[in-house]
Parts: sequence; C-alpha cells; structure tokens
Amino acid sequence: MSTIISEPYLHLIEYCETDAMRIVHHAEYIKWMEYARHRFLLSNGVDWAEIEREQGLMMPMLSVSTEYRRLLRFGDTVAVRAQLEAFDGVYLRLSYRMENWKTGELCAIGRTKSGFVDRAYRPVLLQDAYEEAYKKLIAAKTGAAAEAV
Amino acid sequence: MSTIISEPYLHLIEYCETDAMRIVHHAEYIKWMEYARHRFLLSNGVDWAEIEREQGLMMPMLSVSTEYRRLLRFGDTVAVRAQLEAFDGVYLRLSYRMENWKTGELCAIGRTKSGFVDRAYRPVLLQDAYEEAYKKLIAAKTGAAAEAV
Amino acid sequence: MSTIISEPYLHLIEYCETDAMRIVHHAEYIKWMEYARHRFLLSNGVDWAEIEREQGLMMPMLSVSTEYRRLLRFGDTVAVRAQLEAFDGVYLRLSYRMENWKTGELCAIGRTKSGFVDRAYRPVLLQDAYEEAYKKLIAAKTGAAAEAV
Amino acid sequence: MSTIISEPYLHLIEYCETDAMRIVHHAEYIKWMEYARHRFLLSNGVDWAEIEREQGLMMPMLSVSTEYRRLLRFGDTVAVRAQLEAFDGVYLRLSYRMENWKTGELCAIGRTKSGFVDRAYRPVLLQDAYEEAYKKLIAAKTGAAAEAV
Repeated sequence: MSTIISEPYLHLIEYCETDAMRIVHHAEYIKWMEYARHRFLLSNGVDWAEIEREQGLMMPMLSVSTEYRRLLRFGDTVAVRAQLEAFDGVYLRLSYRMENWKTGELCAIGRTKSGFVDRAYRPVLLQDAYEEAYKKLIAAKTGAAAEAV
Repeated sequence: MSTIISEPYLHLIEYCETDAMRIVHHAEYIKWMEYARHRFLLSNGVDWAEIEREQGLMMPMLSVSTEYRRLLRFGDTVAVRAQLEAFDGVYLRLSYRMENWKTGELCAIGRTKSGFVDRAYRPVLLQDAYEEAYKKLIAAKTGAAAEAV
Repeated sequence: MSTIISEPYLHLIEYCETDAMRIVHHAEYIKWMEYARHRFLLSNGVDWAEIEREQGLMMPMLSVSTEYRRLLRFGDTVAVRAQLEAFDGVYLRLSYRMENWKTGELCAIGRTKSGFVDRAYRPVLLQDAYEEAYKKLIAAKTGAAAEAV
Repeated sequence: MSTIISEPYLHLIEYCETDAMRIVHHAEYIKWMEYARHRFLLSNGVDWAEIEREQGLMMPMLSVSTEYRRLLRFGDTVAVRAQLEAFDGVYLRLSYRMENWKTGELCAIGRTKSGFVDRAYRPVLLQDAYEEAYKKLIAAKTGAAAEAV
C-alpha cells in the first residue's frame, strides 16, 4: 500500500536561511515544519487562514522539538514530510522528516504539539468550536492509522 | 549643544543574523531600524505597544530603504541612531545611521516612512486618533529642528 | 510579443511572516525579493549556489528599497516578478513587482543593487572572475531590452 | 548561596517577533535561547565569535526543544536564564527558563545540545581543538554543580 505521505513539501533553500557556518541556521527548520503543517492541513481540506478569519480560532504552538542529523546548504532542496501522530480536538501532534531531496538523506526530524484557542486565547475543543474541521482531521487520523497497518 | 540623538540603540550581532557570506544578512538591518524606531518612540514618551493595545492604533510601514556601506559580523556591536525627519500626524519619517560601535565606521544608512491606521486598516490623523501621542511626536520634531540649527 | 517575465515566483504566505497587525511584516518582502532574484538567476542559467561553492564568488547587497501599497495576509499567495534593470559586471540591479496573485492587485514594488566580491570581500568584475555567468546575465539584459521595445 | 544564574538576558520584544495571533511566534524563542547561550559563553570568558574567527571552530546545533506555557506580546520584556546542564568537550547542553520579566511568570522552557566541529564540519574534542575554552566551560560546569548542592 502506498504511503499517504506521498507529497512532501519541497523547499528550495534560500540564502537568508543560512548562517556563518555556511549551513542552514537551526531555527529555520522550525519554520519548515510550519510550512509542511500548513500544507498538511490544506491537503486535508482544512484552510486554517479561512478558519482563523471566519471562525476566530487560532492554533498556538505548545511544544516543538528538532534533531539535526545532516547539514543542509543554500541551493539544496529539502523535502519535508509531515505525519499526523495524534488528534483529539484538544491537541494536534505531528512529526516531520526533513530529507535532502536530491540525495534522500535524512537531515532532521521534528515534532510539534499545537492547541486550539478562541480570540480571547481560551482553549477550545475543536469539535465544539468548528466541527467541520474536527471531522476532517479525524478522517486524516483514521487514514494515517490505516496506513500504519 | 549636545545632540539629541545622544543614545544610540546598541545591538550585539547574533549568529542567526549572519548568512553564508559570514556577514550579517541584509534583511536584518530592516529589523534593526525597527528596534531603534521602537526605542526612539519610547524615549519620547510614546509607548506604541500600549497605544496599539488600548487605542487600537497601528503603524504600518509604507516604505523602507537601506544602503549598505561596510560589512558587519557575528559578535560585532552595531550602534543604530534614529533621527526624526518629518512628522505631521499622517506620516512618520525617520532616518537611521548604523555604525560599528567599536570602530565608529558607518556601516549602513536607512530611511522609513510609516503611517497610522485604525483596527480596520483605515488611515487616521494621529492628532484626531490620539492627540497625546501626536503632541509628543511634534515636541520631538521641534527638538530635532532646534538641534539641527 | 509576450513578456520575458512570464513566470513570477509564487509564494504562499506563511504564519511566521505575519505580525500583530495580522498582515505580513514589512521585512519579509525583502526576503521575497531574494527568492525571486535567486529564481531569476536560475532561469537564466546562473546557479549562484554552485558559483559561490566552486568559484568562491559572493554577491553582497549594496542597497534595497521597498514601497508598500496594499496589505497581504496569511494564506494569500504573492506573485513576485523580478526584472533586470541594469548589469555591467560590477553591479546587478533588479526591480520587483509583488502582486496578490488571486486579485492581481499590486501590493509592493522594490529595487535591489548587488555587487560581486571574492572570498576576501574584494570587489571583482564578473567578466574577469567568471565570464560564463557574465555572458548569461548580459544575454538576459539584452533579452530584457528587446522586451522593453 | 546566591544562584550563579544571577544575570538573565533581558530582551525587549519587538514587533517583528509577533505573529497574527498578536503574540510572539514560537520560532523566535529558539533565537532567544541562542542570544542567552551567546551571553552565557561570554560571561564565562568564552568569546565564540573570536574562537570561530581565529581557531576555525564552529558549534552546530544538534537538537533543540521548547515548551510554551504562557503568551508573550510586543512590548513585553522576557528574561532568559541559561543553565549549563552538561559539558564534556564533545557536547554542550543547556537548559533555559524564559520568564515575563515584569510579572515573573514562567512563559517557556527549552533545551539545546550543541557539538563542536572544525572548518570541514568534522567533530572535534574541544579539549584538543582549543583547550583554553574547554577549561573555562569545565570551570563553569563545576560552578553550576556547586550551585546545585
């Protein structure tokens, strides 16, 4: 069975992402995970920009971690694969594999845990706040679980 | 008469501000001008964080320019001097001199033009929207003009 | 005759690019011009990552300016069109139009001027330092001039 | 006995660090840990900018993690306290507490693990590569251990 994580986010590494070691600065990977998370949501029918604008929901970061394995440089392309690890309407947990797209080498792995809040920064249950998005993410989770079998 | 721009903003250059040329990336200077503008406002009694929170006023950037003269590196300290060029309640124009603090060399100059808008992004006259801040900036302008004589 | 600037760089705006005004922070546009410049060079056969690595040439920024016309937000797509304004082997000047891709509205315009230096940060003539890249950029310039007629 | 972590790094939060939630973007905390690490090294007599320039040693990030507890906003001041957790010449591990300086509330905690490499990105033992810096960090570790008693 082919993996559901079939379309990694491909990112061409720009000069402003490098540092004086002539490699990508470690904080940039945190942003790449954000870009991949954004696309993971979009590919599951969840347009967070629209949800934030129309439903007043926000998705603050609760924890983030990254392990760096191999260097990446200006002009390299990194392929970021996001995978849904857990979702229950309170928290959204994703893991990420960041590979050098050309060589296939694993360059970094990461994890994030996000929550859901209203405009006053009060935690909400996504099933209560916006059921449509909740259902789409539950479906994505079921798909991920089926994949993992 | 001593200059009114007596206290430059001193900024220790961090690794994340450098790029693969082993010098500061040019986009970082745009942020330094912001830091110096923030402190220029604070030193004139204008706490923009409070104004935005309590008055609902925002100060979007309308134009920015920078000329780069000499390199700066990780571990250097840059001294940013902001000077009020023009203010009429509609626009706030500042110029900036960015010097290597240790050597005194001029490393970059810049200019910014900001406007004032309400929460709906509609342009406002600062004298109408929040007279207290307007008066403080007019006073700063008068001081700057007196200095220039 | 169709324009040579036929393929703008399309950039999906990410959350980390926004600020507390709920719009894109003005410093991010400086990076977008870099991304478009990178792609302008690549589309003209000039792979700057390779040139820097193999020829030891670097391309420091000498001046940058941006005018902001309309807001952009998280989830918008910006189309950045880079146009070669001047090139003589000493300086590379480009101008940029940044449009809301969906609405076609012009959101910002910008200009950059870059130079060429060796590993010791000494200015070089690109025709002497790496003639192949020089010829490609002269060809791009000729194409741009022909387009403008 | 007074704590050795007596001088936290105080950082005034700037507009460019916020995002559309009107709070600080989570990736900025990664940079704050870098600023505090830089100052931790300086306060222990280790000037990494000089070491990199003169000894050709670099300190790549191997892993980073952050937990976010409370929001921080534009205009807040964050106090970042770095603490040495482990050092053996191969790895440098630090932990960080990030507090709202005014209220004293704990806003985030983090951890980093750095290594040491030469100009060719080969891992080195700091005791072999630059003993002086090694001794200073061992002394800092001993001080930290004495503090913890």
